[in-house]
Amino acid sequence: MQIIMQPIGVIHSPFTEKNQTPIQASRSQATGTVEIAPEFLDGLQDLEGFSHVFLLYVFHCSSGYSLRVKPFLDHKERGLFATRYPCRPNPIGISVVRLLSRKENILTIEGVDVLDNTPLLDIKPYVPDFDVRRDVRVGWYETRSKE
Amino acid sequence: MQIIMQPIGVIHSPFTEKNQTPIQASRSQATGTVEIAPEFLDGLQDLEGFSHVFLLYVFHCSSGYSLRVKPFLDHKERGLFATRYPCRPNPIGISVVRLLSRKENILTIEGVDVLDNTPLLDIKPYVPDFDVRRDVRVGWYETRSKE
Repeated sequence: MQIIMQPIGVIHSPFTEKNQTPIQASRSQATGTVEIAPEFLDGLQDLEGFSHVFLLYVFHCSSGYSLRVKPFLDHKERGLFATRYPCRPNPIGISVVRLLSRKENILTIEGVDVLDNTPLLDIKPYVPDFDVRRDVRVGWYETRSKE
Repeated sequence: MQIIMQPIGVIHSPFTEKNQTPIQASRSQATGTVEIAPEFLDGLQDLEGFSHVFLLYVFHCSSGYSLRVKPFLDHKERGLFATRYPCRPNPIGISVVRLLSRKENILTIEGVDVLDNTPLLDIKPYVPDFDVRRDVRVGWYETRSKE
C-alpha cells in the first residue's frame, strides 16, 4: 500500500542550515511564514481564532533512516521511534507554532523549528482538550530535560 | 512534488464503523493494539519509557475533501484547516494515546479514536516540554467545549 501526498504549501524560516535549526518549536522564538497554495484559501477561514496550530510537514532534507539513532538531546543510541529524529521511514514532522496573524493565504508564525522551504502537508488547530495529557512519563528524556 | 509514504504497521481498535468511533483520543477510554511490521522492531526500543505516544496515521476511509466543513463538535461550517475533520488534502491523522505495554512489535494502547485497521505512518514520543503550550485560544471550539 502506497499513499501519495502533495504539499499544500511551504514553510519559510530563517534557517537554511540543519545545524542552525532549533531542536524543537518549543525552544524557538524565531518567526517565519507559511505560504499556502492559493487554491486552499477557503480552508483557512476561522483559523485565526486559534492562537496555536500544528504544522505537519516533510523533513525534506532527510534521506534514508536507521532504526537506532543518537537523539540531538542524548548521548546514547535509542530506538528511532522513541525519538523525534528527522530521518524516519515516513519523514513527517509535527510542530506546534504560535499563529501571529493571517493575511489571505499567508500565515505569520512564531516558534519555527524547520528549515526554510519545508513542504507543508497539513495544518490543524491545537486544542489542549484534545492534545494535552497529564501524568506523563518521558523515558530517556527525563534526565536529559534537567540538564 | 509528490511524497510517497508506506505504512509501517496497522492500528487495531474496537471500532469498525465511523459513527461509533470516538471524536478524539482524549474522549476515548477504548484500548487497542498497534502492530508494527517486524522489520521495524529495532526502532521500538526505549519506547516503553514513555507513557504517551503520538500516532500518525492515514484516515483511510476518507476520500476527497471540501474546504468548508461542519465539524463534529460544531453546528456551523468552518474552514477545513480550522478543524480536525478527517477528509483533508493529505489525510493524516494524529492522536496522543497512552502506551500501556509493548511486547516485541505489538503495542497495547489506551485512548484509541481510530477505525480498526488504520494504516500507521509513524510513532513519536509525546514530550510535554515540546508539545504543550500555555495561554492558548481555541477559536470556534471555545464555546463548544463548554456544552
